[in-house]
Amino acid sequence: MEIITKIKQMQAKSDKLRKQGKRIGFVPTMGALHKGHLSLIRQASSENDVVIVSIFVNPIQFVSGEDYHTYPRDFQRDEKLAKKAGVNIIFYPVVEEMYPQELLTFVNVGRLNEGLCGKFRPGHFQGVATVVAKLFNIVKPHRTYFGQKDYQQAMIIKRMIEDLNFDLELVIMPIVRDKNGLALSSRNTYLSKKETKAALVLSKSLQVAKELLDSGERRSEKIISRMNDLIQAERLAEVQYLEIVACQTLEPVEIVEKEVLIALAVIIGKTRLIDNMLWE
Amino acid sequence: MEIITKIKQMQAKSDKLRKQGKRIGFVPTMGALHKGHLSLIRQASSENDVVIVSIFVNPIQFVSGEDYHTYPRDFQRDEKLAKKAGVNIIFYPVVEEMYPQELLTFVNVGRLNEGLCGKFRPGHFQGVATVVAKLFNIVKPHRTYFGQKDYQQAMIIKRMIEDLNFDLELVIMPIVRDKNGLALSSRNTYLSKKETKAALVLSKSLQVAKELLDSGERRSEKIISRMNDLIQAERLAEVQYLEIVACQTLEPVEIVEKEVLIALAVIIGKTRLIDNMLWE
Repeated sequence: MEIITKIKQMQAKSDKLRKQGKRIGFVPTMGALHKGHLSLIRQASSENDVVIVSIFVNPIQFVSGEDYHTYPRDFQRDEKLAKKAGVNIIFYPVVEEMYPQELLTFVNVGRLNEGLCGKFRPGHFQGVATVVAKLFNIVKPHRTYFGQKDYQQAMIIKRMIEDLNFDLELVIMPIVRDKNGLALSSRNTYLSKKETKAALVLSKSLQVAKELLDSGERRSEKIISRMNDLIQAERLAEVQYLEIVACQTLEPVEIVEKEVLIALAVIIGKTRLIDNMLWE
Repeated sequence: MEIITKIKQMQAKSDKLRKQGKRIGFVPTMGALHKGHLSLIRQASSENDVVIVSIFVNPIQFVSGEDYHTYPRDFQRDEKLAKKAGVNIIFYPVVEEMYPQELLTFVNVGRLNEGLCGKFRPGHFQGVATVVAKLFNIVKPHRTYFGQKDYQQAMIIKRMIEDLNFDLELVIMPIVRDKNGLALSSRNTYLSKKETKAALVLSKSLQVAKELLDSGERRSEKIISRMNDLIQAERLAEVQYLEIVACQTLEPVEIVEKEVLIALAVIIGKTRLIDNMLWE
């Protein structure tokens, strides 16, 4: 496994691989790899000749007051996990390599960034779209892999790829959960034992929504209200948002008629967690 | 010479060329080719294995009330000129190919888009940056060629390339003028005979600025005032802006101490023309 830290070197390497006819699969990450990332890597490995993972904690996607400085960083651990999972190249730049001068150029994906997390993290998705555009130009992949856990992010990247004609295929992989149902996230490491238990209200409330929908309930308000009750009952949990939206437009749906996304953000202690479920 | 109208076909072609080790030079245009474009094409031809010219009148860079619908379009004439100048491929998409659905994603290059033309054409440079990002992803060039005549545009594209890590080299070519000094522009075809004569005030005023600077004048205000007097004397001309700015930041300069750009926009009859000069 090769570790590349310089942009020009990464671009030259990808050019060389492409010239050799190799298909490049790309998994962008902020490190702190968990089984969710590993599922993306394994999928990339099965579909491409070369798997490149980027590890970069991207400052411009953290909103003021968020956890940029405390975000878990452990390169040696990530390196071992990546190697074991079959990664060929880690692209691991420092901040000054990615942002050598004041950044003046930003990529914005309108409307899709307005609801859900976008409402509570102003500028977050602009930071994500911009860094992902940069990474696409640096890694030059044929396919890229994102997790459904960050569903809004995946939809924004999908639209950016379409609108800006990035010549690559986006693969969205299912949420990976621990044995109790908690969606894996690098931020789960922030949780105390008590909080980890409390955090189960996210997936449990999605289960409640699923049961209601399966049994014929179609009114979003009713479903959201029942989810809310369940979460309110957990002393350590505070709902940030709880929404039922159309899968493509991410616009709220009052009556469920076709496939929807049920999405929520909940603050457990001081840790903000998200989860979601597609229902058809 | 090949004409390609589909994005996927253009991308596949460029992939193939790159695999063969060919260097691709790219000249984006809106057609209505003149000797300015041809100088870019010839330079591209001398430095690359393959020259690709795009011809696309990009709706999203025209501001409301501008000349999108009347912009000169003559593909057969452009085709002949391109062929004669040594172009290998013309990428010639229709609007529905470039914008098949509502565009939600925009590229913005902050600050550099605020002054000069940006003040008078709100949204113009966003439209330019966005379509150029798209074209870079479609044509996948090694080098791209822009004219100094649209200096602000060239600086915005330069910064976009740096900020978003497009893996290509930007070449900026000098302004081409007719025998009387008028900077070549596709919009010169709008001018009547009288107006064409009146339009010489743009280059003449730049000459006045040069003479003043050469003779030691350093106060921008004085230089601009003299340029303004010359243009005011022409009944058909109306100054839109007249500025002396720093070459890199495009911020106004009060006292000329190092290299500057003298730039102006003048409306002749109903036609908006721009011109500029670098002075060191």
